[in-house]
Amino acid sequence: MVITIIGSGNVAHHLGLGLFKAGHRILQVYSRNLNPAKELAKRLKARATDNLHTLQTTADLYLICVSDKAIEEVALQIDFEPELIAHTSGSISLSALSRFKNHGVFYPLQTFSKAREVPLNNVPFCIEANTPENKTRLSMLAGTLSGKIYELDSEQRKQCHLAAVFANNFVNHLYVLAQQLLKEKNIPFDILKPLILETAQKVQQLAPGEAQTGPALRNDIQVIEAHIEQLKSDKLEKLYRFVTASITEVSKSKPSEGSQIK
Amino acid sequence: MVITIIGSGNVAHHLGLGLFKAGHRILQVYSRNLNPAKELAKRLKARATDNLHTLQTTADLYLICVSDKAIEEVALQIDFEPELIAHTSGSISLSALSRFKNHGVFYPLQTFSKAREVPLNNVPFCIEANTPENKTRLSMLAGTLSGKIYELDSEQRKQCHLAAVFANNFVNHLYVLAQQLLKEKNIPFDILKPLILETAQKVQQLAPGEAQTGPALRNDIQVIEAHIEQLKSDKLEKLYRFVTASITEVSKSKPSEGSQIK
Repeated sequence: MVITIIGSGNVAHHLGLGLFKAGHRILQVYSRNLNPAKELAKRLKARATDNLHTLQTTADLYLICVSDKAIEEVALQIDFEPELIAHTSGSISLSALSRFKNHGVFYPLQTFSKAREVPLNNVPFCIEANTPENKTRLSMLAGTLSGKIYELDSEQRKQCHLAAVFANNFVNHLYVLAQQLLKEKNIPFDILKPLILETAQKVQQLAPGEAQTGPALRNDIQVIEAHIEQLKSDKLEKLYRFVTASITEVSKSKPSEGSQIK
Repeated sequence: MVITIIGSGNVAHHLGLGLFKAGHRILQVYSRNLNPAKELAKRLKARATDNLHTLQTTADLYLICVSDKAIEEVALQIDFEPELIAHTSGSISLSALSRFKNHGVFYPLQTFSKAREVPLNNVPFCIEANTPENKTRLSMLAGTLSGKIYELDSEQRKQCHLAAVFANNFVNHLYVLAQQLLKEKNIPFDILKPLILETAQKVQQLAPGEAQTGPALRNDIQVIEAHIEQLKSDKLEKLYRFVTASITEVSKSKPSEGSQIK
């Protein structure tokens, strides 16, 4: 396919490179600021622009990779009828692009930072479009990048995005808090890395409910009280109590299978 | 070394098998109930007992792998002076074994469930003992299992255990909650697995603060409000607001490096 990338952030960067490597031709890269557009365009052998009114009209797909807030504004500035246009957001409805005849959503469910390369072949792509034909076109495109294609409606996709906030953003924040706790006693964060990795690997195989271990699950009041004593901030104490209560509540609704918390 | 394992739970199981495979001889396995002791003893070519007063006194090390609550009770029933005795708990002080002449702590910082094998070679072992000699003995033993040995005092070890509750128990609970959210809209948990894995892999390389992405970090009020609207339970709404505020607070104290949340 001939593809124009709109945006130059993390998603534009990772999808652009992935599509380029998969053999697609990138026609143009747009960004509000010309420099990041040029930087990405160079890597994609494409042309850069900072003016949506100068977009070439001949691409097969215009892929909007800007922040959620900017999608509407970008869409309003596209002054021709594109062959196909899609956004890449988890939380914006398909209908945000309804002024175009052929429109869809091409949402990669993954966390992207420029500092880290992520192979796309394992990334789930959530596809939605206004017609079965457009859905097929986007699914086939996703198939050139990844083996995991999900056809989800806007409501389902938004729920995925919300679940991803819990499983990624909030999880990563717990890593941040754990690091702060270790720092208080001069312990390097490295000591937690194998545990963090195993925690994620464990639920690739076991259901998360079966993988649960720890004092909250065992209702080990002595350890829980000692931990609360150890926590020096009200915020962490509140979070500790809240999540502990939630673990207890969930585990009560279902018998544990005997995993032991270390 | 010749080692007697006291306990037959997840830790006894994983450490016992690891020590056996590393070439140590397991003399006996004790458990309150004879059957689990027999089961594990069989795999370790050891003898089983459910009576601490019948322990053979000739092992080089007595490794206490029972739950935190039971450590004291077990220690009280050991009616001879062992060559060396250690517990494997993150949250119990070294002094819990101070009635023995040679005592220490041998704490593997990992989550263990019987349903899943975990190679020990990457597991951090936290070592503490009442004399430098005993510390050396336990460190050398850990070195036959793993390349990661940390000499930590009881206070540091307890802090590790607390940090591990955040990075493992609480993280896993977020997976449980994410799974519940997906279930509401008939989306399989599988869709989150690559994200969960990448979230953990990312902080093997980047600091957790640099790996953070998402609406809370971007302070994307529109998405945050939409998510809160989507959450059907007061509990999840409370948790969402709390963690979002904490992410905002931490990110304000330090400029972000431009990771974008998907």
